Amino acid sequence: MVGGEVDVPSGLPARVPTPQPGDPRLARLSLNQRTTAGWSLREAVDGCVAAGLPAIGVWREPVAEVGLDTAVRWVRDAGLRVSSVCRGGFFTASDPDARAAAHASNLAAIAETAALGAPTLVLVPGGLPDGDRDLVGARERAAEAIAALVPAARDAGVTLGIEPMNPIFAADRGVVSTLEQALDLAEPFAPAEVGVVVDTYHVWWEPKVHEQIARAGAAGRIVSYQVCDWITPLPADTLLGRGMMGDGHVDFPAFTRSVAAAGYTGDVEVEIFHADVWAAPGADVVATLARRYVELVEPYLAP
Amino acid sequence: MVGGEVDVPSGLPARVPTPQPGDPRLARLSLNQRTTAGWSLREAVDGCVAAGLPAIGVWREPVAEVGLDTAVRWVRDAGLRVSSVCRGGFFTASDPDARAAAHASNLAAIAETAALGAPTLVLVPGGLPDGDRDLVGARERAAEAIAALVPAARDAGVTLGIEPMNPIFAADRGVVSTLEQALDLAEPFAPAEVGVVVDTYHVWWEPKVHEQIARAGAAGRIVSYQVCDWITPLPADTLLGRGMMGDGHVDFPAFTRSVAAAGYTGDVEVEIFHADVWAAPGADVVATLARRYVELVEPYLAP
Repeated sequence: MVGGEVDVPSGLPARVPTPQPGDPRLARLSLNQRTTAGWSLREAVDGCVAAGLPAIGVWREPVAEVGLDTAVRWVRDAGLRVSSVCRGGFFTASDPDARAAAHASNLAAIAETAALGAPTLVLVPGGLPDGDRDLVGARERAAEAIAALVPAARDAGVTLGIEPMNPIFAADRGVVSTLEQALDLAEPFAPAEVGVVVDTYHVWWEPKVHEQIARAGAAGRIVSYQVCDWITPLPADTLLGRGMMGDGHVDFPAFTRSVAAAGYTGDVEVEIFHADVWAAPGADVVATLARRYVELVEPYLAP
Repeated sequence: MVGGEVDVPSGLPARVPTPQPGDPRLARLSLNQRTTAGWSLREAVDGCVAAGLPAIGVWREPVAEVGLDTAVRWVRDAGLRVSSVCRGGFFTASDPDARAAAHASNLAAIAETAALGAPTLVLVPGGLPDGDRDLVGARERAAEAIAALVPAARDAGVTLGIEPMNPIFAADRGVVSTLEQALDLAEPFAPAEVGVVVDTYHVWWEPKVHEQIARAGAAGRIVSYQVCDWITPLPADTLLGRGMMGDGHVDFPAFTRSVAAAGYTGDVEVEIFHADVWAAPGADVVATLARRYVELVEPYLAP
């Protein structure tokens, strides 16, 4: 189960030794299970344990495949923390029926998040409805949908985590485009109710991102720190342009220092969407990300 | 020379009649010559005249092909305004020799802009140097390079137009990512020295873009309004994802109202990069963009 000493997907020799289970540097590393898309939930849980990762970020679909009770038992029996649940959101529809369906789905997602013991449900806001060009209106509907979920989240002890998305996805996936905007949306609510996800891939370019990270930290609103690189050239399918840390343009030491200085002490999730990463053996992917993490991220996590 | 009644690149029948030369609605419409990439400068000048467009945005390379004096004579003899010159910038290099070369190239571009009688030289800042992940540093170098060009621009009567670019290009093309950031960069200088380009494709997603357009207008800093749509799915070559107005997600009436309310009275340039647009006959492209312009942009230009 332990991966090899060749980096995925570059094929280059590893620059640092693979950290082994029990290595204290792994104490906050979480595998977002979508990074090993070829693995089932069972395989992902086992892969985390084998590699010494103490946490996993799970997606709703693979949890639903095995059933929530089974998923809860598996992660508990493996001794893993669930660092986040992906994903709620997609609540920008203007049609009343679609809005009601999204609300119901998000209520279920909140309950699942609570059952899994995860601190946060990641909210991907969704894009513009078909043929609709009113981005301001879509953003207002996202704000209304979040407000409508707050009571259930509070009751469940789950923090809603607004994920600002790279503007490349503003039309079709996520109308919340900056950390600043996500914080503005979160502000009317208590930090335990609504927080923000800091994902390097999505916000690395934001002009005042370090100030916004400090703002988020001061307000106690950082619910998840996700690492993933911005690579160029973008692949033909831009959804799969999320690269392994170190393969692209993101300054991970600088980002990690900011997040640490902002007081974040939670898990660090690696979430990569990349065809070559998905095609590689899961254990090799986990070994590579663990090496990159101890080289580029973990040393900068000390406050 | 006059294009047909079928829209490019959609192939759909035109929704409105093609405006004819002399139509007062064309009084501010400019063809950025890159939109008709298959046309030489001579063909683009003739194409504008045939279609009744009073202005053209020129690129330096096709001007250099025929020589600056010839280009100046052609546009003057055709009675065209040059709405902008594309493009200066690309001054984020850290190597001193590369920086000196970029400065020299920009000085030449300023002189060309003055000779062509254009109000502004569009500045595309450039991306991160190879292997460099210090985005903050690259942005600082862009600011320094702009400051170094201001005396020459002032002497030449040319306004430097900072073009914020969609964050999709932050790594490899343009480190200035928002209209707000461009305005922050422009602020130390007089409005006649440094302004900003409002290009719908680049800033359509910006959370506070309407406030920033108002800010830009109040400061007298809008030097160019460029229209182009954000289309999905993005093509494999993301540089060619700039679509015809109306084919994508941009709310042109809302943007145009904001730009008009901000006091902008200059030309409106259509700048489209799209493989199917480039493959179409230039006259058909110009006819389509003129129709889309009088439908989606021009009615909203009245202050």
